[in-house]
Amino acid sequence: MSPRRYTLGARAAAVADTRERVLTAARDLYRDGGFHRSSLDEVARRADVARATVYQRFGSKLGLLEAVLTDYERRADLPALAAVVEEGPPETLLRAMVTEGCRYWATDPALARKILAAGSADPAAGELLRRHDAGRLSLLETTVRRLDEAGRLAVPPGTALDVLWVLTAFETYDQLAAGRGLSTQDTADVLSGLAEARLGG
Amino acid sequence: MSPRRYTLGARAAAVADTRERVLTAARDLYRDGGFHRSSLDEVARRADVARATVYQRFGSKLGLLEAVLTDYERRADLPALAAVVEEGPPETLLRAMVTEGCRYWATDPALARKILAAGSADPAAGELLRRHDAGRLSLLETTVRRLDEAGRLAVPPGTALDVLWVLTAFETYDQLAAGRGLSTQDTADVLSGLAEARLGG
Repeated sequence: MSPRRYTLGARAAAVADTRERVLTAARDLYRDGGFHRSSLDEVARRADVARATVYQRFGSKLGLLEAVLTDYERRADLPALAAVVEEGPPETLLRAMVTEGCRYWATDPALARKILAAGSADPAAGELLRRHDAGRLSLLETTVRRLDEAGRLAVPPGTALDVLWVLTAFETYDQLAAGRGLSTQDTADVLSGLAEARLGG
Repeated sequence: MSPRRYTLGARAAAVADTRERVLTAARDLYRDGGFHRSSLDEVARRADVARATVYQRFGSKLGLLEAVLTDYERRADLPALAAVVEEGPPETLLRAMVTEGCRYWATDPALARKILAAGSADPAAGELLRRHDAGRLSLLETTVRRLDEAGRLAVPPGTALDVLWVLTAFETYDQLAAGRGLSTQDTADVLSGLAEARLGG
């Protein structure tokens, strides 16, 4: 390996490491004090990186929030959830996607709770969250269409969409996990039981 | 009517009027800026009453929050909801109590949203909200017991309680009313449809 390539590799690793440190600091600050109380300066201080680096890489508080959301989706393995919705057998689709959805929210519920609270307090953060939630709606539409095509839908598609919208929301998961102290699996059982009973198993 | 009784009556009316003005100001401030940004001084200013009056009547920010909660329950006619749960015929109990619950939340959803957000940001407010939510749990326990006694429960009582806990939460109502733009009646139909399909109609 030439010295130049070695240098480039080390530099890329350092960039990735800095990014990871900033994201971890942002997550911790959101969890502790909430999004609106976490300035980019404070994130830089906690991550022990230069202020300029944070501003340069993430642009703004909202840019950092977007990066934290995208990082959540990566850590929660969003592609695995999407694969279930798009390719899972229709006979077990409802149970599998609701269960996979609970696993998704269980990745970091304390962070999800604070980020959603930020969305109701800050209009720009709310808009960002709605854009990400549109991805969930699109997965639900695929689920409803696949169940309908397989002749496994006991209610009209519009009703099925409303039902899945409410059963796969973070708030719904959290009502059972935090509110009733249920495990992720028990929460998934309650919610997929509801989905199957109403939409057709 | 003696002059003394007239004076007492006018004084009682003035006390009630002041209380109403303070509660209205607190509600408006919670809705606009949230609970944690609304000081008692600010509430007094907006209600156009003396600071001392607010401190004397409500004691603290938390005392005022409790008064706003109790006032919400009165405005939303909590006794009507309790009557349905305790006396409604078992055949229509699920649909009636879920529908009555949606009407209850529809009284002032913007205020409910902000008050619940306060509970997740402020531990003391959270404790107060949990105490009020214990009243909801008690109504759900009565519902489950009555359905069980009438032989109308298709699942174990523990599961029925978890299901009703999630279906009657404000967050669940709000996912459909605000998130999907459904009317109160359509929201009630989706949620009572779920309750009946899973628990037995």
